[in-house]
Amino acid sequence: ASKYHFHRRFSARPNVPVFAPLDTFPTRHIGPNIAEADQMLAVLGYSSLDAFINDSVPAHIRVSDATVSEQSISALSESELLSLARDIAGQNKVYRSYIGMGYHNAVIPTVILRNIIQNPAWYTPYTPYQPEIAQGRLESLVNFQTMVTSLTGLDISNASLLDEATAAAEAMVMAFTGSGQKKRTFFVDSGVSPQTVAVLRTRAKGFGINLLVGDVFEALKDSKVTSDLSGVLVQYPDVDGSIKDYSELAATVHSLGGIVACATDLLALTMLKPPGEWGADIALGNSARFGVPAGYGGPHAAFFSVTEKLKRRMPGRLIGKSKDVTGKPAYRLALQTREQHIRREKATSNICTSQALLANVAAMYAVYHGAPGLRRIANRVHVMTQILKENVESAGFAIINKDFFDTLTINVGKVVKDAEIVHQASVAQGINFRKIDERHVGITIDESVKPADLIDVINIFNTVASRAPISLSNLTSPTTPSFPDALVRTSEFLPHPVFNTHHSETELLRYIFHLESKDLSLVHAMIPLGSCTMKLNSTTSMIPLTWQGYSRLHPFVPADQAQGYARIIKELEQDLCTITGFHSCSLQPNSGAAGEYAGLCVIKAYHESRGEGHRDICLIPLSAHGTNPASASMAGMRVVPVKALADGSLDLVDLKAKAEKHKDNLAAFMITYPSTFGVFEDGVQEANRIIHENGGQVYLDGANLNAQIGLTNPFTCGGDVCHLNLHKTFSIPHGGGGPGVGPICVSEHLAPFLPTHPLVATGGSQAIEAVSAAPFGSASILFISWAYIKMLGGQGLTDSSKLALLNANYIAHRLRGHYNIRFKNVKGRVAHELLLDLAEFDKKAGLKVPDFAKRLQDYGFHPPTCSWPISTAMLIEPTESESLDELDRLCDAMIQIRKEAEDVITGKQPRDSNLLKNAPHPISVIALSDAEWNRSYSRQEAAFPLPWLRERKFWPSVSRIDDAYGDLNLICECPTVEELADKNLSQAAL
Amino acid sequence: ASKYHFHRRFSARPNVPVFAPLDTFPTRHIGPNIAEADQMLAVLGYSSLDAFINDSVPAHIRVSDATVSEQSISALSESELLSLARDIAGQNKVYRSYIGMGYHNAVIPTVILRNIIQNPAWYTPYTPYQPEIAQGRLESLVNFQTMVTSLTGLDISNASLLDEATAAAEAMVMAFTGSGQKKRTFFVDSGVSPQTVAVLRTRAKGFGINLLVGDVFEALKDSKVTSDLSGVLVQYPDVDGSIKDYSELAATVHSLGGIVACATDLLALTMLKPPGEWGADIALGNSARFGVPAGYGGPHAAFFSVTEKLKRRMPGRLIGKSKDVTGKPAYRLALQTREQHIRREKATSNICTSQALLANVAAMYAVYHGAPGLRRIANRVHVMTQILKENVESAGFAIINKDFFDTLTINVGKVVKDAEIVHQASVAQGINFRKIDERHVGITIDESVKPADLIDVINIFNTVASRAPISLSNLTSPTTPSFPDALVRTSEFLPHPVFNTHHSETELLRYIFHLESKDLSLVHAMIPLGSCTMKLNSTTSMIPLTWQGYSRLHPFVPADQAQGYARIIKELEQDLCTITGFHSCSLQPNSGAAGEYAGLCVIKAYHESRGEGHRDICLIPLSAHGTNPASASMAGMRVVPVKALADGSLDLVDLKAKAEKHKDNLAAFMITYPSTFGVFEDGVQEANRIIHENGGQVYLDGANLNAQIGLTNPFTCGGDVCHLNLHKTFSIPHGGGGPGVGPICVSEHLAPFLPTHPLVATGGSQAIEAVSAAPFGSASILFISWAYIKMLGGQGLTDSSKLALLNANYIAHRLRGHYNIRFKNVKGRVAHELLLDLAEFDKKAGLKVPDFAKRLQDYGFHPPTCSWPISTAMLIEPTESESLDELDRLCDAMIQIRKEAEDVITGKQPRDSNLLKNAPHPISVIALSDAEWNRSYSRQEAAFPLPWLRERKFWPSVSRIDDAYGDLNLICECPTVEELADKNLSQAAL
Ligand SMILES: Cc1ncc(COP(=O)(O)O)c(C=O)c1O
Ligand SMILES: Cc1ncc(COP(=O)(O)O)c(C=O)c1O
Ligand SMILES: O=C([O-])O
Repeated sequence: ASKYHFHRRFSARPNVPVFAPLDTFPTRHIGPNIAEADQMLAVLGYSSLDAFINDSVPAHIRVSDATVSEQSISALSESELLSLARDIAGQNKVYRSYIGMGYHNAVIPTVILRNIIQNPAWYTPYTPYQPEIAQGRLESLVNFQTMVTSLTGLDISNASLLDEATAAAEAMVMAFTGSGQKKRTFFVDSGVSPQTVAVLRTRAKGFGINLLVGDVFEALKDSKVTSDLSGVLVQYPDVDGSIKDYSELAATVHSLGGIVACATDLLALTMLKPPGEWGADIALGNSARFGVPAGYGGPHAAFFSVTEKLKRRMPGRLIGKSKDVTGKPAYRLALQTREQHIRREKATSNICTSQALLANVAAMYAVYHGAPGLRRIANRVHVMTQILKENVESAGFAIINKDFFDTLTINVGKVVKDAEIVHQASVAQGINFRKIDERHVGITIDESVKPADLIDVINIFNTVASRAPISLSNLTSPTTPSFPDALVRTSEFLPHPVFNTHHSETELLRYIFHLESKDLSLVHAMIPLGSCTMKLNSTTSMIPLTWQGYSRLHPFVPADQAQGYARIIKELEQDLCTITGFHSCSLQPNSGAAGEYAGLCVIKAYHESRGEGHRDICLIPLSAHGTNPASASMAGMRVVPVKALADGSLDLVDLKAKAEKHKDNLAAFMITYPSTFGVFEDGVQEANRIIHENGGQVYLDGANLNAQIGLTNPFTCGGDVCHLNLHKTFSIPHGGGGPGVGPICVSEHLAPFLPTHPLVATGGSQAIEAVSAAPFGSASILFISWAYIKMLGGQGLTDSSKLALLNANYIAHRLRGHYNIRFKNVKGRVAHELLLDLAEFDKKAGLKVPDFAKRLQDYGFHPPTCSWPISTAMLIEPTESESLDELDRLCDAMIQIRKEAEDVITGKQPRDSNLLKNAPHPISVIALSDAEWNRSYSRQEAAFPLPWLRERKFWPSVSRIDDAYGDLNLICECPTVEELADKNLSQAAL
Repeated sequence: ASKYHFHRRFSARPNVPVFAPLDTFPTRHIGPNIAEADQMLAVLGYSSLDAFINDSVPAHIRVSDATVSEQSISALSESELLSLARDIAGQNKVYRSYIGMGYHNAVIPTVILRNIIQNPAWYTPYTPYQPEIAQGRLESLVNFQTMVTSLTGLDISNASLLDEATAAAEAMVMAFTGSGQKKRTFFVDSGVSPQTVAVLRTRAKGFGINLLVGDVFEALKDSKVTSDLSGVLVQYPDVDGSIKDYSELAATVHSLGGIVACATDLLALTMLKPPGEWGADIALGNSARFGVPAGYGGPHAAFFSVTEKLKRRMPGRLIGKSKDVTGKPAYRLALQTREQHIRREKATSNICTSQALLANVAAMYAVYHGAPGLRRIANRVHVMTQILKENVESAGFAIINKDFFDTLTINVGKVVKDAEIVHQASVAQGINFRKIDERHVGITIDESVKPADLIDVINIFNTVASRAPISLSNLTSPTTPSFPDALVRTSEFLPHPVFNTHHSETELLRYIFHLESKDLSLVHAMIPLGSCTMKLNSTTSMIPLTWQGYSRLHPFVPADQAQGYARIIKELEQDLCTITGFHSCSLQPNSGAAGEYAGLCVIKAYHESRGEGHRDICLIPLSAHGTNPASASMAGMRVVPVKALADGSLDLVDLKAKAEKHKDNLAAFMITYPSTFGVFEDGVQEANRIIHENGGQVYLDGANLNAQIGLTNPFTCGGDVCHLNLHKTFSIPHGGGGPGVGPICVSEHLAPFLPTHPLVATGGSQAIEAVSAAPFGSASILFISWAYIKMLGGQGLTDSSKLALLNANYIAHRLRGHYNIRFKNVKGRVAHELLLDLAEFDKKAGLKVPDFAKRLQDYGFHPPTCSWPISTAMLIEPTESESLDELDRLCDAMIQIRKEAEDVITGKQPRDSNLLKNAPHPISVIALSDAEWNRSYSRQEAAFPLPWLRERKFWPSVSRIDDAYGDLNLICECPTVEELADKNLSQAAL
């Protein structure tokens, strides 16, 4: 009976009154209940949770219980949270925005909204590093890639980047590295959106790129530019709506050995000659208007496509087609996968988490509409813009841009003194236009605009010009496009069957569920990925996200329209400061890696402000995540590695030596705490003291913050700045590889340098420029972390960290004797994750990490993090959300696999063909004929090694994938009609 | 390219203007596009859709194109619909209701809301008649049954009934039949809710039961009552909140040979001695407060449990445990399955569609909370009620009911002249109390009530009494319950592991998805169930349902608070009249069968109004659905069967003979059109003329209305009344066996008799009493059909029927030559469904209908309707929503199965063990060892008989289920701890 005790409060709490809410969240979020926790503590030899925590976390870094407590952050129940969320949504004013600048009111087909964005089977999986259990979203990401290459007319596309501005920065850096880092000038046309320019400025700095902004046609006449030019960036259509013919320009840049990057718009490209056809080398942009809610700035997927010859230098993740060991076609992450882990400080991009979920939404949108549907949408948008132009001109206003797709820049000067008059008139109608300057107003039309909306817009101008309003019957529609013939798209796009089959809701629904059925997510089983913190993503925290009050805000609306968001942002910043011990926070970075980069730029700016701009050495332990050195390089620092001792802890002697050696140039030290080896090192404060003594700042990588909350914090550990992965510790779902949010928290002395934004002022008084396109990054999903914190409350947050530690140590205990747990502290405790070293099995039986990982798939689990931070190891992180039952299931599976390995070691099973080497075993293999099966173990042993697998098992959909084949044959698009017909498989593959 | 044409309008439409909405619904709802339709027409030998329709539907019953057209019902796009839905939701006032009377403000855990109620994989499957592909919801329904028996203390429970009132009616009829239909008196205590009494009155009439209402204790002193008593119905707690000890009463009734039925409340039973422990034979009630939104009255699941000795007479569906042919435990529909099909007019219940989806929600709610959670909720509700009592008494009011759980009846007479004063004060605060009479006000507390809400309620009384308001700090909580010790529950409940395991959100989420993974639904493949019309249930029509503006209304709120609902109801009634050709409509019946019953009662009332109350003969074709004769009996009619001719059409000679023979007593004729044989009979109008000439009324069973819309209609066919299954033709999802809505439409002369309701006047001037507990039945889901009609518009509706016919005829064409299509019209056309007669295979090879059906499961399809209306046949209905690809997939599968059957016929495969007899083949069988496999066909042939199955296949989770075993061993609860432990399978089964 005590096993089924209802309350799950792990810290003492004075008598729960009868009026305490019934639907408190901690009991739902935390897997084990009190009785189970007691049972686990007993197994570990503790009589109390506190005693266990005392052995796990070094005493000298502990913070007081009051730090993160019911007093500092009080808990709301689930229903209280929902009702508050409703009130706050009401504080956002959902006006109609025609602001454009890369953000639109997307129309999301409800079947996609409900079955992808709102479906945990789509939003809870991790990045598809285990392709055998991720073929669904891999296929969908290939659809995304295909959509992008087809629309941009380029050869290859990646599977998304964080936003248009950072994608532009990647292009700039590709141009720079393309010149062998010799040509330092990169020219940006003045038609590029200001937020993109801001992010480029930040990025240019670290690389020492000479960024120039102006009229690109003029610039190419200037030899100072041309002699040192690595590339140019143009926008097509540009931010003011103009469409220019860049084909000659492209030829010129190419003749100079430079690269042409083009920021563009997928919808426009259904009508406009694609960049690939007029000579662009890189096309990039925001795919959000393909069905992704605006969400006050994000998240959404940036796209990035390049020519064949640039493909192996493209940043980000790329999905490629390969085949499995049985020859069955299968997708996998191909090029650039975690490239920072290999290239580390030589990497020129730190992109890791990207925007998979939103890329999937955009791809599904294209699958649902197909080319004819997209063309119809584009045509309507364009025709409406033409009508708008005519009517605005009739009212006496001048349109600046002759050639346009969906955006007009209107000179209001002939009619009114100040554009403010127009804006006041529009806002009074609940309508936002783009504010450009005193004379100019911008308007962008999108798919959501209905005829009546258009009339409203037109009549604002009529009213301002004191003319009679028009009505629907006055509208007539032009029939030819408003851009030159030479720029009209003539090539077909999206001819692939996948874009021409699922056009009924039933068909799309089945396609979505068919893909879903191939992917393991948190709805199936634990995903014990070390360093990834795959915890519960609660429904209550997700529900309000797609309410109009949150989803329909343009990022650049006037502040008074976003008071609800302002509250969420402010409270989340405060709570994160409470939790980290820091003074200030910026929510702008869109991923952990982006946070690292932002944090290091802040450190640089700090040094510069003190006249120490020369400080550029960054010490980084060898065990650090690959994004750390990559980010340091990007911020213009030189990386010096620091060694670890045999027990996994930081080599303080080495650290001291290097800090002192570089004391005059020491900029920063990056440390992950607890370490990526899964231990709370005693020496963290000491290490950080050394750094400070030598003039450096300490960057704490907060990926492992889940181990710390309420127990210690980055400030107490001696840090000056840290990033948090809200998509780890703070429960934003991983979305199958993004979105993410990587805010940075800083000490008071760094607060002035937090990033600003060109359109909405954020950050400090001496702010660095923007690091993301939107002022608050992926604003809408900040709600999730805000809700997570509010529902757990301080005590629930602290309990969560305690239980995360307990769960990890319970696993360590159960696996002890079966596996080599590489690092523990002196008390025998690991932190919130544990590192199993499998080296012995390779030595004894030729069994490698992937053999264990793939075999774990046969048990229905997602494998732990593999071969990182030690190549022969697995890193297991259970999180607090996993129940004791689930922990036991995982341990049982691991122990059984250990037995299977033993059979190989003893020679009972052959080395080259055994349960591990042949894993995973999909149904297609289990169903092989007897002759083909031909193995020294049975189908039963392969498929159902433990009894519960007969009742509950997630099946891999393909056999082990042949990475080598995929690397050699890089195919990153979905099959064409012909390919499918060839294989006579047209139905099967769809 | 034409294959990928975007527009899918099948009827000519004058030039689509550029301003036509982009997101029109018909193109998404209808599977084939225009080019595909043309292709199908060509295959059938037609050059136009109209030519095809002319051959399919008899000319003399056709209606003009204007009948159901863009003019009569104009179409809204999906986004227009959503925005209108938002406006209409705003016209409902979401006040806090404390009205009680069986309806509460349920708190639905968001994880259940999102992953069951809003998840198409849960809401689109059909009733689990194919258990091998339905183990998930079968298990969940067993949880429901277990929850009900455990809480009510009775032995066995069914898997839901329509609502509490109809459940009470079933109990009354069981009492009546229990007396061998000899004792005609049934006594209902005055504490029973008025809507229950109303429904009992209606039902009593048809059976000739003498229904008495009054004080049940007094009644048992009256020998006129006791001498003829079949049973009593009490309510516990009663409608006024009182709790009485009925144990002695039960003994008395039993001593008289009568039955004690008890309407009760599951939450109260966590604290109160359960009915089964004090002698009730039947417990029934509404399970909605377990997580089901109020939705202005429904849908929700009624529960019904009985003692062991009554179990084989219990109405409704019962899930039982059986095993599959390999011995693996498996669930199935057990007793009473479609009992009307067997007993027909001897059946005393017509229940068919029930409330599976809502039963699943209630069961999951109990799984999530477990006994401790439920106890905590109940305790809070009770303590709040106690506090309310104290405070209201302090304010000078008198509480009528001394013993209570959550409801107080307050005599306001000492303080105010008229209770209206209290109601005015409460409504002014946005609060509704129950209106009883001038002196009494009722208040019911539920889980949603927060301390601040309680204060608001208390202060209304303080204000009315001119006393100072109190605040939260004034509250103190009592510690002992407010009902006698003898009625305190002492027995445990819900000890089963399933109710004690999934208490964290992660665990529940996985449990939900685990069950989901076993069930085939529309998200996987076509469900071609004849007569069930499994079409698209569009996301857009589902989304608004769970908005607060629709979900949170109590059914008895004042009319001015439900103006949004009033609009939906009125427009839906009008549109259904437009479609059927009738004059008036009642939306009250909760299922097709309930509609039949209501319609026949209306006919009876009509005859009575004309002094022809003796008319009681109902002619029904032998091919009619079993609910028809059952409903007729229940309405007090005598059924006379009518024969069919060899070509499947009605035997008009037989009809005429019988109509004339019974002309003095002829009440009605029930006909399904097109017939259940899948043909539009030419003689329908003639048949109906014969009936009218002989004084009868024509009841048209509208289950097949999908074939008619815009082409013909029940009025034109000669009907006087019809029911519609909104859960078929009008796109309400089937929910895995309910909810349903079965409105009736009637001619003008029947309109006065449409049903009324005791609390909210509905129906005509000479209305029959209520047929459902709520005035508008399952009001919230009416939205779905309303939206479906509005989004398709008249033209889209008509096109849908045309395409439904085309799809069926295309299948008939493809299967011709392979299978015997039993009935066609003279032009060779079937209607919207087709009947394949498989009799030949039994003769030639011993292959029966289930062998084909189960084998179709191996192809990933849900089998068609089996053995009905002809025992050797399958009835296939594709609906308009299936695409040509999907139709071809089904036909390919059927043709391949035909080949497999040929191998048995020719002796290539043995008769007793072959692909059909052994079907379905779950993975566990495919993975058998070679020795166990031991079949004359390969695993590959079993699992992947067609190539596309390798890519996309839904797997049955068990082998064929042993019905005989299940019938003998009726086990209808989920496993206990001990049972699981015995099998050492505790994890597996959870
Ligand atoms: C230790 C560590 N630092 C940084 C990152 C990068 O975070 P992101 O993927 O959000 O860019 C990760 C991601 O796994 C990590 O584990
Ligand atoms: C012809 C016919 N009539 C009546 C019904 C009964 O409808 P319901 O299940 O909604 O009670 C059905 C249900 O399948 C049917 O097919
Ligand atoms: O609740 C909503 O209105 O979306």
